[in-house]
Amino acid sequence: MSSHIQQSPIIVIDSGLGGLTVVRALRAALPHERIVYFGDTARLPYGSKTASTVATFVRQIIAYLSPLAPKHVVIACNTATALALPEVRKAFPQFTITGVIEPGARAAAIAAGAKVTPIIGIIATEATVKSKAYERAIHRRRSLARMLLRPAPLLVPIIEEGRASGDPLVRLALRQYLQPLVQRGLDVLVLGCTHYPILTDELQAIVGDSVKVIDSAEQCAVDVASRLAARGLLATVSVVGQDLECYVTDDPDRFARLGSRFLGVPIEKPSLVSPDDLYGVMTTPPTVRVAG
Amino acid sequence: MSSHIQQSPIIVIDSGLGGLTVVRALRAALPHERIVYFGDTARLPYGSKTASTVATFVRQIIAYLSPLAPKHVVIACNTATALALPEVRKAFPQFTITGVIEPGARAAAIAAGAKVTPIIGIIATEATVKSKAYERAIHRRRSLARMLLRPAPLLVPIIEEGRASGDPLVRLALRQYLQPLVQRGLDVLVLGCTHYPILTDELQAIVGDSVKVIDSAEQCAVDVASRLAARGLLATVSVVGQDLECYVTDDPDRFARLGSRFLGVPIEKPSLVSPDDLYGVMTTPPTVRVAG
Repeated sequence: MSSHIQQSPIIVIDSGLGGLTVVRALRAALPHERIVYFGDTARLPYGSKTASTVATFVRQIIAYLSPLAPKHVVIACNTATALALPEVRKAFPQFTITGVIEPGARAAAIAAGAKVTPIIGIIATEATVKSKAYERAIHRRRSLARMLLRPAPLLVPIIEEGRASGDPLVRLALRQYLQPLVQRGLDVLVLGCTHYPILTDELQAIVGDSVKVIDSAEQCAVDVASRLAARGLLATVSVVGQDLECYVTDDPDRFARLGSRFLGVPIEKPSLVSPDDLYGVMTTPPTVRVAG
Repeated sequence: MSSHIQQSPIIVIDSGLGGLTVVRALRAALPHERIVYFGDTARLPYGSKTASTVATFVRQIIAYLSPLAPKHVVIACNTATALALPEVRKAFPQFTITGVIEPGARAAAIAAGAKVTPIIGIIATEATVKSKAYERAIHRRRSLARMLLRPAPLLVPIIEEGRASGDPLVRLALRQYLQPLVQRGLDVLVLGCTHYPILTDELQAIVGDSVKVIDSAEQCAVDVASRLAARGLLATVSVVGQDLECYVTDDPDRFARLGSRFLGVPIEKPSLVSPDDLYGVMTTPPTVRVAG
């Protein structure tokens, strides 16, 4: 009976490549799952855009993918989680939808340990910082935590350009963003964007070994695994060749070329979904126009 | 008779803020013109996207603005010019549409002076470099010119973050992008993106005073002025308060806040056009779906 649902896919949605770090962690935790990934590469990045625009984009994508009847939907982008999660949950009550911020905040609260007033730093996109989503999620758990938020808008383009640890520009950008946090006595640093784990080594070197670095992508995967397990929805059999299926709204070749760095293994060329097709979806219910 | 057309607007289209450097130059050259600016801030940047996606975006925008019956349409974005100009000209034969690349290439060919094999460097977005639009446009005029093309994908996000000359990261990025060109004996450097003029001083300092730096935004304004003059379409009277009207697809506040840096004077809050409205336009002729 439930075996059909067990074999239905997990959908992972991101603005582009970053969410593949979530897929990587999901595949490590849940090797039997069929995962469908959607990267909105025609309209990326989301990190400098408003809540109403990002919520519209994410709703279009979920509406487009809804015929797949996913057993779970992951918003694998911190910006989209911060700006759109409550709204898309309301728009699609038939799906369970989770994001990357609650799992990241939970892990940060735990990592802060026994300190009464731990100092928790968060680097993220401009939009994620402005939303205060991390502050709220951490304060619910550690009301005395001191929070240092730092928008780091250059890190996504730096990573998307293919720059890696060792490049002096990478080091300089990380130092500019992180040194003010380190100087104030950081205990925990949350990587509040799914691109950032690519630079974990360099980040850890700058903040020092005493600072616990929380990867929101990894925490998200742990969260999804425990949710599916609790609902008895874990897949028990792998279907060969159906483990990862990718869709993008622009440039499948570039996605395949750059994606392996995020996924950790080579990635097949994704299918192209024209942004027009997404808007085609919008003319049918569910209601898709964002108020305001 | 023709006075009506003389008072009709010039439309300036860009992915975001960069095209305001073209508006700045246009306003200096043509102080009486009514200018309508459109920044596609919900879907920027264009510089990492494909020709078919960018052409679709630009066609949607022109279709949306076409009721204004512009006397001229300027594609004030190098990427959009490189990827979409021939196609939008075909789609809207009723308008005269020009871009920033031909004027920039013409100025570069002239600036190269008497040298038989001048070395002309071009920095631009990834998409503009890949399109080879500058190479073709310069080679038509100087078939023996040696061309050094350099994608500089970080410069737009660096400028959009509000970083300015004097920031060590700005200097390092410019040096990384430009030193390989300087070492090969540059004669002329074309700023192949309308964002870059913001950094002209720092750029000039790195390439040295002997290199002529060509600002494609400024050249574009000169080109539009001479075209309108040739057609007898220059406005002769200013309408107070109607000199600049802006539309954006996301975050009017941010545009107003950051735009003054590009325009050189304070900018009023633009009107918001939902991306949905653009797609609404798409369901009516002119044909808007991009083949392939």
